[in-house]
Amino acid sequence: MKTSKFDQLDRIFLPRSAAVIGASPRDGFANTLVGTKIRDRLFMVNPNYQEILGKKSYASILDVEDPIDYAVIAVPSQLVIGAVRECIEKGLKAVHVFTSGFSETGLEEGIKLEKELASLAKGKIRLIGPNCMGIYCPKSGLSFNPAATNEEGSIGVISQSGTIAQMFNYFERSMNMKISKLVSYGNAVDLDCPDFLEYLADDPYTSVIALYIEGTRQGTRLHSALKYTAGKKPVAALKGGVTREGGRVASSHTGALAGTGETWSAMFRQSGAIQVEDIDDLMNTTVALSSSPPPGGKGVSSITYSGGFSAVQSDMCVKAGLEVPQFSKEAVGELRKIVPVAGTMMGNPLDAWQMFYRYSGNESRLADVFRIIAAEKHIHSIILQFDVIKFMVRMWGGQAGERLEVIARNFLEGCRYARDEAGKLVLITVYLDPYTDHEQERQLSFFLKKLCQSQGFPVYPTLNEAIRTVAYMYRYSVIRQDGGKGQVEG
Amino acid sequence: MKTSKFDQLDRIFLPRSAAVIGASPRDGFANTLVGTKIRDRLFMVNPNYQEILGKKSYASILDVEDPIDYAVIAVPSQLVIGAVRECIEKGLKAVHVFTSGFSETGLEEGIKLEKELASLAKGKIRLIGPNCMGIYCPKSGLSFNPAATNEEGSIGVISQSGTIAQMFNYFERSMNMKISKLVSYGNAVDLDCPDFLEYLADDPYTSVIALYIEGTRQGTRLHSALKYTAGKKPVAALKGGVTREGGRVASSHTGALAGTGETWSAMFRQSGAIQVEDIDDLMNTTVALSSSPPPGGKGVSSITYSGGFSAVQSDMCVKAGLEVPQFSKEAVGELRKIVPVAGTMMGNPLDAWQMFYRYSGNESRLADVFRIIAAEKHIHSIILQFDVIKFMVRMWGGQAGERLEVIARNFLEGCRYARDEAGKLVLITVYLDPYTDHEQERQLSFFLKKLCQSQGFPVYPTLNEAIRTVAYMYRYSVIRQDGGKGQVEG
Repeated sequence: MKTSKFDQLDRIFLPRSAAVIGASPRDGFANTLVGTKIRDRLFMVNPNYQEILGKKSYASILDVEDPIDYAVIAVPSQLVIGAVRECIEKGLKAVHVFTSGFSETGLEEGIKLEKELASLAKGKIRLIGPNCMGIYCPKSGLSFNPAATNEEGSIGVISQSGTIAQMFNYFERSMNMKISKLVSYGNAVDLDCPDFLEYLADDPYTSVIALYIEGTRQGTRLHSALKYTAGKKPVAALKGGVTREGGRVASSHTGALAGTGETWSAMFRQSGAIQVEDIDDLMNTTVALSSSPPPGGKGVSSITYSGGFSAVQSDMCVKAGLEVPQFSKEAVGELRKIVPVAGTMMGNPLDAWQMFYRYSGNESRLADVFRIIAAEKHIHSIILQFDVIKFMVRMWGGQAGERLEVIARNFLEGCRYARDEAGKLVLITVYLDPYTDHEQERQLSFFLKKLCQSQGFPVYPTLNEAIRTVAYMYRYSVIRQDGGKGQVEG
Repeated sequence: MKTSKFDQLDRIFLPRSAAVIGASPRDGFANTLVGTKIRDRLFMVNPNYQEILGKKSYASILDVEDPIDYAVIAVPSQLVIGAVRECIEKGLKAVHVFTSGFSETGLEEGIKLEKELASLAKGKIRLIGPNCMGIYCPKSGLSFNPAATNEEGSIGVISQSGTIAQMFNYFERSMNMKISKLVSYGNAVDLDCPDFLEYLADDPYTSVIALYIEGTRQGTRLHSALKYTAGKKPVAALKGGVTREGGRVASSHTGALAGTGETWSAMFRQSGAIQVEDIDDLMNTTVALSSSPPPGGKGVSSITYSGGFSAVQSDMCVKAGLEVPQFSKEAVGELRKIVPVAGTMMGNPLDAWQMFYRYSGNESRLADVFRIIAAEKHIHSIILQFDVIKFMVRMWGGQAGERLEVIARNFLEGCRYARDEAGKLVLITVYLDPYTDHEQERQLSFFLKKLCQSQGFPVYPTLNEAIRTVAYMYRYSVIRQDGGKGQVEG
């Protein structure tokens, strides 16, 4: 249910106009925002300049005649209070305080300044921060990262850490991870995680939410906001500082109470959020959630290109809490008609190397391999480990590109069938050594990755990440069935 | 102690001459071997050709007048027996049977053929395989992979899987992982894992051994060979198929008995080998072992660039069985003089972002940061997470390269001190998104990675891999102290 609270937050993410207080020609916010669609509704404030990046610079926000909804404050910490006071006087709805040097330093001076800031804002203006990157919203043009695509998507991101928030921007392109709204909220003296959760829960443009949190001063509110939000859409959550050591770091980082790891895990479980273990997990799981419903069970089939990998891969799946069930006799019979036998095991994982390496004319049957496996009732997810480009390049030289395209067209037909007709979760790994010195290998890997992503498949660089993601997706399916009663195994 | 067995194996890895039986102009072995130093002592055998790749092709190995020590057999499976028979007649010391289609197919025909092969070879010729890639030895020029560097190193590799053996070649360059001798031994009807272990244990050119194994028919011999070898040099071991599912796959892959995961873990522990969990672990740990002694304890310090990362990083270390102890008051005092405070926690992990992002002239103090941390007695390993190149590129544009070099020179001075003077294990992560479309970021990441590797530091693409590697190195230090009594925790 949308509320006036929703409208208030919506106005913050989608302001009619915005200002940068403490702008300069080299300032990251000013430089980023003049490149987005907010540029014509943007005001620069800095008494030391007449003009910044082609825009008039005002000595104070009070000198701007137009109404302003939102300001980014990027002045030294001792000037923050004055800047916020002027924003209140000007009648802004909200400010984002980028500046650090508050409670996160652990120094008395910073803690005192933060208290002053909180009591100044209270009831007069909404405040994001301090010590954070603020908002990225392609729909309005608010941004802090010139590397961001500004393409509108459906992934919402809430992060207490600015760096982790920025990681989402850096991986937008390569992971095909398009964002609706992102906020880095730092020390949270006013607007806090529960506010953003509830807002994104009701936001029709957001279909899945990624959360990074270190601590909160409002445990009860957070619990209920998480429950409300996870009841409406998938929430993947990473708690920084679940161990004693990590907790010590987290509380010094944002000055918030951290709680024990067990407390947090219980809260996530009871709320229906999926707790993940690291930053890669958070991005990977979010991308999977945004592209597919969770699998109907823990049965995984993987299609690979090596017997050795098959064994290790099975171990990895089982250790992650999944199962790698054997195919039915019927399926094995069908597969034997397609996949050559010599040096190839006929089982799950399916070592189908000859389908990828030998260009025998049998490639058109690759789609059938997926059809046969997708028809298996006890197989709920399929991972295609397509890490063979380096071998193709070595064997086929200049012809590798053309042949790769034929092979990819065929297996993607099968992947689409498995996903769209049979309702299976389908993930693809396209490994590329970032430090390869082989340009053709790099180009072909890019080509294949983009082709798979263009058809909506989540693509991961490593098998380990793909397996972990399937495991989280499976856990999510259990959580959903469980209806938030907290009876999740593992 | 070197034995006649050692000499026999040494002659196989370093043959005076070699032949490819079943060579053709497109055959991988023929094409690879004509490119190595064995080329002038290489004979092509195939009745269907007069000449192959500029060399005379013989109809049979019996037609070659020169003595031959070693042959690669790459003919269809039904021709293997005949080829081996001719090799025996010709008086070869050893053959490598590349051909698959034996017991690994699970088919009666293949099992029967393998038995025939084994009894033919027994006592008459040593045999590697069938169903494997054979030997890579830069010193002699034996190879199966045209992508290999052929540069001599000190890492020995023994792999039951051909694909996993090849992974070592593909990563030689990017991981700076140079190999002394590598063997992929497949179905092991004659020469088996214990033979290769004992050989590499005594090989003066091999300082560390990576092992991938799926199963064996000689459990007792394997146990004693592992113990002998791990007593002489570090052995990192990956068992494919430790779970029930994985074990099923492993036994179908090479037709060998797999045993339970617990049995294998106990054997590795009792032998003093370090058991790792996946293929990345195997390569990463081997590289670390080849470059550094293990740490003296479980205390880790990580130097990072984000508070959020610090919290997650601490969690990751603790979950991996390590500790992230707080710095001494003295160290914190020293560090405060160097690392700016605002927005930066002063603790372990050290969020030193301002040292990397702000080009303030303070860079020369980066070496001191490492000196201070290295002096801490309860810190045994240091991880530098240098994943900030994308931020540098964004902030500094064309100047990023020059500034990165200054920063790198300074931190590497500190890393060398920590490793060479203070005896700490030092690992560096230089993350690069393989799918970044930013050419400058890619170039600078390459530059930095190579610079770090050129000074002998192991470089990993992700923090997760670096932490796992430190954890394995720590386990190795415990195993060494334990003296093979098997009292390893965890």
